[in-house]
Amino acid sequence: MRVHGQQYRTIFVADDGFTVAVIDQTRLPFAFELHHLQSAEQAAEAIRDMIVRGAPLIGVTAAYGVALGMRADPSDASLERVVAMLGTTRPTAVNLRWALERMRTTLAVEPPGHRVERAYDEAGRIADEDVAACAAIGRHGRALIERIHETRAGQVVRVLTHCNAGWLACVDWGTALAPVYAAHEAGIPVHVYVDETRPRNQGAALTAFELGAHGVPHTVIADNAGGHLMQHGEVDLCIVGSDRTTAAGDVANKIGTYLKALAAHDNRVPFYAALPSSTIDWAIEDGVRDVPIEQRSAREVTHVRGRAGDGRLLDVEVVAPGSAVANPAFDVTPARLVTAIVTERGVAPASRAGLLSLYPERSGG
Amino acid sequence: MRVHGQQYRTIFVADDGFTVAVIDQTRLPFAFELHHLQSAEQAAEAIRDMIVRGAPLIGVTAAYGVALGMRADPSDASLERVVAMLGTTRPTAVNLRWALERMRTTLAVEPPGHRVERAYDEAGRIADEDVAACAAIGRHGRALIERIHETRAGQVVRVLTHCNAGWLACVDWGTALAPVYAAHEAGIPVHVYVDETRPRNQGAALTAFELGAHGVPHTVIADNAGGHLMQHGEVDLCIVGSDRTTAAGDVANKIGTYLKALAAHDNRVPFYAALPSSTIDWAIEDGVRDVPIEQRSAREVTHVRGRAGDGRLLDVEVVAPGSAVANPAFDVTPARLVTAIVTERGVAPASRAGLLSLYPERSGG
Repeated sequence: MRVHGQQYRTIFVADDGFTVAVIDQTRLPFAFELHHLQSAEQAAEAIRDMIVRGAPLIGVTAAYGVALGMRADPSDASLERVVAMLGTTRPTAVNLRWALERMRTTLAVEPPGHRVERAYDEAGRIADEDVAACAAIGRHGRALIERIHETRAGQVVRVLTHCNAGWLACVDWGTALAPVYAAHEAGIPVHVYVDETRPRNQGAALTAFELGAHGVPHTVIADNAGGHLMQHGEVDLCIVGSDRTTAAGDVANKIGTYLKALAAHDNRVPFYAALPSSTIDWAIEDGVRDVPIEQRSAREVTHVRGRAGDGRLLDVEVVAPGSAVANPAFDVTPARLVTAIVTERGVAPASRAGLLSLYPERSGG
Repeated sequence: MRVHGQQYRTIFVADDGFTVAVIDQTRLPFAFELHHLQSAEQAAEAIRDMIVRGAPLIGVTAAYGVALGMRADPSDASLERVVAMLGTTRPTAVNLRWALERMRTTLAVEPPGHRVERAYDEAGRIADEDVAACAAIGRHGRALIERIHETRAGQVVRVLTHCNAGWLACVDWGTALAPVYAAHEAGIPVHVYVDETRPRNQGAALTAFELGAHGVPHTVIADNAGGHLMQHGEVDLCIVGSDRTTAAGDVANKIGTYLKALAAHDNRVPFYAALPSSTIDWAIEDGVRDVPIEQRSAREVTHVRGRAGDGRLLDVEVVAPGSAVANPAFDVTPARLVTAIVTERGVAPASRAGLLSLYPERSGG
């Protein structure tokens, strides 16, 4: 996507052919800076310090981290060490383990002398596959926006989204935002309502930044405001991402998603979840019962990071001292509130039958 | 209510018999300081600068402002001037106009030499009436909490509230929090989930402060978290205040209230609005259509005020620069989502018939 008129991916190999460049997401939205990785240790740090975030991007960064590690030492022992080290950077990222395992099995069968080239190739392939999946989600989701655009007699289509499921979380395009970018590229006028997404403000900081940088019209709102907008006919559809979707179509996503789905349902606004099939957990059905919800640090609620008047980034305390805090990071939107699920293969009802119609290979024993 | 073990009202006449003391709410939750008013002009400033806030408290402060003005000059011209001056402090506070009009008509018929004493008396009476109304709301609402306590076999009753409708917005007790305090005083174990209430964080700053200072167990949560808690059976009832309630029982309250009412309905959690009858607007029925919603400054969303590491209160910027912002201050919860309304006269269904059963004098033409 575009930043300052230039096309970027969130991660790419620099002109020297080996340094890996990423966007430093800890500096967003106030500064757009590239950060350069030249060793597996630096890749691990970038993941741990959240210079990169978003499950797909974490996976690709780890894959390139393996490539950097092979450059320093392509031995079997080094491969095992690097994969293990990168695997400890974030506790719950499924893509991270998946990408590292893919790198390990791909490289283990190569002679050490071929591993560097093979590792860069494979990491690049993982990145390209993510871009292709996101682009496909974009194409399928664009059709939904196009249809609303037609029924609204050519008026602007107003989309509400929660958190950041944009290209900054992936390599390009994003998941929930891919249909928005695809519509925008196709000349369909869109306007995005961006939930700020407390406590970490990924909407206000990241989604607003990437939409603004790419030139997509948008408006940031407090998380509390979306229901009111839907009551007053200001939202034509909601699109969110998903961290984990059950085989029955229940959608686990950033805390607060469920509240927006309820408001959409109450006001007959279509509510879509856009996700790569890699996030579908075919082993579980009832998301409210079976998806474990991460409880995160109280400090995310008690303190807010922002830019002070003098330009410094700092944390300010906003909760009465001494008060207890709870901070569940995700919630589950039951399938009954989800109009449809958009994946790289198409659009399907949020149900076991719907998902199996896209992934017939998952049916049967 | 109690602060540091001492009983306070939000406004009272100091020991010298004329200075009016208020709690400086701009310093909460990080400092508890009294602020002293000795002139009508200082009272107007306290209202304008939000040293006092909350409709009932603003009304009482304005009433005492008139008393202070009479002390400086009890003439007819002074009375008119002081009432007019205090009336311009906040644009939309209905209680403010009502209290000033009551002071004006009460004092106009008195000879100037009697006006100071009469003004302090009348202001004190307005304060006492507010306390009595809130205490009555507390008694009626306590019965609802008591019933849940019984059905839960004596376990802690978990209440979710939004924004600040506590004693800090009134003179004592509060509206939504009055039943909580009454239950707590009666020895019924309660635990309050406090929505932080972006964008102005009245929950995290004021509700959490006053519950903590009085010793009521509570937990602050991001506004996004309440639906998840209700899905998991962690909330026994919701109680909110109301800025304006229609004759049909639609409840206008702080933005985000509607989302919590939807979640309560979806999870069969009772949802109550507690309010003095002075906030019922008997002239309108359909709140979504007919309650005008104030659009407030973008800065409330783009900036967050808090305490920095060095102890200073300051604003930090949290939204991507250049992004547009919308900031509706209230939303309307349709009566169908409100289990019942609690007023100073009792508990009634959220409907015209329900409200008329408490206020039969409003029926008929």
